[in-house]
Amino acid sequence: MFKLLKKSGNARRGILKTAHGEIQTPFFMTIGTAGAIKGLIPDEVRELGGEVILANTYHLHLRPGEEIVAKAGGLHKFMNWDGPILTDSGGYQVFSLSKIRKLKADGVEFQSHIDGKKIFLTPEKCIEIQQRLGSDIMMCLDECAPYPAERKYVEKSLELTTEWAHRCQIRNIATRAREAKFEIRNLLFGIVQGGTYPDLREKSAKQLVQIGFDGYAIGGLSVGEPAKLMYEMLDATIPHLPTDKPRYLMGVGTPENILEAVSRGIDMFDCVLPTRNARHGHLFTSAGVVRIKNEKYTEDFAPLDPECGCYTCKNYTKAYLRHLFTSNEILSLRLNTLHNVAFYQDLMKKVREAIEDDKFAEFKKKFLIHNS
Amino acid sequence: MFKLLKKSGNARRGILKTAHGEIQTPFFMTIGTAGAIKGLIPDEVRELGGEVILANTYHLHLRPGEEIVAKAGGLHKFMNWDGPILTDSGGYQVFSLSKIRKLKADGVEFQSHIDGKKIFLTPEKCIEIQQRLGSDIMMCLDECAPYPAERKYVEKSLELTTEWAHRCQIRNIATRAREAKFEIRNLLFGIVQGGTYPDLREKSAKQLVQIGFDGYAIGGLSVGEPAKLMYEMLDATIPHLPTDKPRYLMGVGTPENILEAVSRGIDMFDCVLPTRNARHGHLFTSAGVVRIKNEKYTEDFAPLDPECGCYTCKNYTKAYLRHLFTSNEILSLRLNTLHNVAFYQDLMKKVREAIEDDKFAEFKKKFLIHNS
Repeated sequence: MFKLLKKSGNARRGILKTAHGEIQTPFFMTIGTAGAIKGLIPDEVRELGGEVILANTYHLHLRPGEEIVAKAGGLHKFMNWDGPILTDSGGYQVFSLSKIRKLKADGVEFQSHIDGKKIFLTPEKCIEIQQRLGSDIMMCLDECAPYPAERKYVEKSLELTTEWAHRCQIRNIATRAREAKFEIRNLLFGIVQGGTYPDLREKSAKQLVQIGFDGYAIGGLSVGEPAKLMYEMLDATIPHLPTDKPRYLMGVGTPENILEAVSRGIDMFDCVLPTRNARHGHLFTSAGVVRIKNEKYTEDFAPLDPECGCYTCKNYTKAYLRHLFTSNEILSLRLNTLHNVAFYQDLMKKVREAIEDDKFAEFKKKFLIHNS
Repeated sequence: MFKLLKKSGNARRGILKTAHGEIQTPFFMTIGTAGAIKGLIPDEVRELGGEVILANTYHLHLRPGEEIVAKAGGLHKFMNWDGPILTDSGGYQVFSLSKIRKLKADGVEFQSHIDGKKIFLTPEKCIEIQQRLGSDIMMCLDECAPYPAERKYVEKSLELTTEWAHRCQIRNIATRAREAKFEIRNLLFGIVQGGTYPDLREKSAKQLVQIGFDGYAIGGLSVGEPAKLMYEMLDATIPHLPTDKPRYLMGVGTPENILEAVSRGIDMFDCVLPTRNARHGHLFTSAGVVRIKNEKYTEDFAPLDPECGCYTCKNYTKAYLRHLFTSNEILSLRLNTLHNVAFYQDLMKKVREAIEDDKFAEFKKKFLIHNS
């Protein structure tokens, strides 16, 4: 499923094979939380170089429900995207979106952020939902510890996450045999937790590797801790992950975060930053961040990023983008999102090329000087 | 500038030539109030058959201001649309959007709906703004009487509208000579007012024809009066308009309104209905209106309109569109708007074909039976 093609330092260049096609690594997944990218059609993400998108088990379970999606022929057909889809397990959303959350040995009880309805999610149920959605890359249900968190809490949380991961794997193996439709079966990833305790990260990684997954995610980071601490946790985790499996840093991050993580051997990323920030007029460019609301762009008739080839940059000026933003035009969300997605996909393309040329360290250094 | 090609009853099929290209009549203008269509790029409107869009003098004067647009190279370049643009004069917006409005002989004082700033708009200023925007079809500043309105009020209002139209034309002729850049100069339309009084409509039409314009708009309708009364006003006005000039019914309307007006000899339309209703989940289809929020579409995996060839109908189901709408996804606004614009442009294409085939009355009858 994962083929490592080349290394440049610890940075890795590879291919991840899924039921819906191959993905060149390292890659960044554009987020389609509820089965839709905010303001874009999937075709646009593909045109910008995106080969995979991420959807959320939590959101889709609540609305419209996996039964509807399954009846529609699966999420790919429902949302008109025939490339790979990774589905998050819902663990993080239960942690971040639900007001009430009760952890039990069996699973987690939480309240829907939509209508307050009580929902009980077990590891088995989590796999079942993802299978019904037709996910190509499924995630185990995990418990995401907050930051900061007491060691004792994290220890217990980690124990639960490992136990749940085991149950997810058992369920996955049990159903996989029955329901395999594709040449390449759906993949299942374990999620390393352990808060900001290096030894717990190591413990978590080792436990998950013992169970054996198609890939390993590192969760519970980028939840408020300093970036330096995040990188330390990567350093504490990655040596304990197998080299022949993909590594996924969940919910990360800024271009800088991504480059630091790639340099440590991470292959996969997702984050709301490009899409969410776009909607807030926070635009990534080759010359650093542009806050398009700024008055200085009122008469700036240059493109947002002259080095970018996206539709927004080819056809519009900063003055127009500012006008759309200050006028609350829907088109603002669309053009801004298109650009930020383009920027992230371009970044990942350059990352892959730099690794192929064995010049990743150089590329990273140059990028960070240019963008800070 | 206007070439009448064919008639079917009183329905007319023609070509309107503008500085930025020809437009086949009858046509419907998609609205780009502030220099942007809500959620769509101009290319999409063109692909759906739209040859002209409408922008608002009032909105663009307030934000970003005509100076910025002029510096950007005009509205066409600013918003990336090289087809014809009609600009409304602002008369209707001053009437409908501004809280405070003082009519003076010289012009109208109003408060910006954005920041409350006082603004004084004269007929001359109104032309000047539209010229700076680079409008292909300009409208005279008018006073739009409410419905219902006393005869006395409408009489006075009409007098002012005629006086202002005259001043707009003088200003237009004065500047036209100096600033003509295109082979076909920018057009100026007068706006017939007169409330719901047939004799005042006639008077207004005759006065405007006396001044002489490139086309004649009928304003102050679709402001709350019954449709029957609107059609009566068309019957009272159209006989007094020259046959060799285009006729534009402002702010109208439903598919039914449009067909009734075309059958009376109207050539041009604009309305927020397709775009605004799209955002409210009110979708026009060949089988009548679909309110996509309706629970009955939860498991409806058929396209919104099997007879429609738009991207939305070709790629998505009603179940997905309902999911997007109930989830407040931005993509909902975009896909819905795309479809409604497609529906209106398709309707106008069929209208033009029916007139060419001299079967307009038949087409209209069939459509209204099918859609009511």
